[in-house]
Amino acid sequence: MPLLDNLIEALRVLPGIGPKSAQRMAYHLLQRDREGAARLAQTLQKALGEIRHCDSCNTFTEAPVCDRCSNPQRDATQLCVVEMPSDLMVMESTQSYRGLYYVLMGRISPLDGIGPRELKLDRLLARATDAVVQEVIIATNFTNEGEATAHYVGEMLRARGLKVSRIARGVPVGGELEHTDLGTVAQAFAERRGW
Amino acid sequence: MPLLDNLIEALRVLPGIGPKSAQRMAYHLLQRDREGAARLAQTLQKALGEIRHCDSCNTFTEAPVCDRCSNPQRDATQLCVVEMPSDLMVMESTQSYRGLYYVLMGRISPLDGIGPRELKLDRLLARATDAVVQEVIIATNFTNEGEATAHYVGEMLRARGLKVSRIARGVPVGGELEHTDLGTVAQAFAERRGW
Repeated sequence: MPLLDNLIEALRVLPGIGPKSAQRMAYHLLQRDREGAARLAQTLQKALGEIRHCDSCNTFTEAPVCDRCSNPQRDATQLCVVEMPSDLMVMESTQSYRGLYYVLMGRISPLDGIGPRELKLDRLLARATDAVVQEVIIATNFTNEGEATAHYVGEMLRARGLKVSRIARGVPVGGELEHTDLGTVAQAFAERRGW
Repeated sequence: MPLLDNLIEALRVLPGIGPKSAQRMAYHLLQRDREGAARLAQTLQKALGEIRHCDSCNTFTEAPVCDRCSNPQRDATQLCVVEMPSDLMVMESTQSYRGLYYVLMGRISPLDGIGPRELKLDRLLARATDAVVQEVIIATNFTNEGEATAHYVGEMLRARGLKVSRIARGVPVGGELEHTDLGTVAQAFAERRGW
């Protein structure tokens, strides 16, 4: 098989990239951006060799334990559970939380064959029951899969006597009822808080 | 900058990949398909080192002159001009042409800063005036840019006394007038052939 076909085939490991896109990418890399392509090959190789999961929070890191988990300034009694490192970054950007995290690196998704075992929820259980954590805040997405994950994780941790909470769902800040989807408005009504 | 951010940045050399997609790709490669990622890094490096342009037809190849151009069975008096290697493959799939090719590796596109000079049309001119080629068949796309390219290339080669033709435009084989766009029907009418 010609090397060009090998390259097109190899590019298809990228999520959401079919044969046509892979072909366009191969042409682009070989024709228009050989320097960027070389950088990509090198960075990918280096990343595969050096990036691992944090022993404590499971996020991507180059050290055994990431900077955040080794920071004594963070409040170790709170543990926030998120799906992906990008969700962790969003939480951090709010600057409203100074506890620690646990990154699931996915969500329960039966259609993709991802259940509690594949998500290695026993690792989260071990992490949350370290006798220091007092509250677990579940911040998975409000999609069907994120909700199912939240439900499963919540039950699992409550059974061990941990205090568990879920971030609030409702009308977005600055949102007008008229432009908010009905399901969200209904939930916001049902989960109204006393003043 | 953490290595993960480097990887996300490096993935953005891929055409059509923004920051969100690059992040998703990085997670996928590190989390779900390290083997495929390693294969991609290696293949990309090898391809960059070994794939070049055919000295004769300008397509991607690993040899100085590609197999097709060195094949004495092909009719060297006909030269078909296409935009990309994928177009060449389509022409070959029809099994209706046994001449040679010239691959422009692009098209004239003023908006992208690609003119005759960037397309290195002087190389095509040198190739077509080798005293063996008798007919040049222009098979660029029927897009605005492909048509502009065809026009420019056609004028350039006709000025050198070469016989130039353009592949036909019209209603697709098996196509019904009712389901063909009006521009195509109008063109097919204007370019009707005597029986």
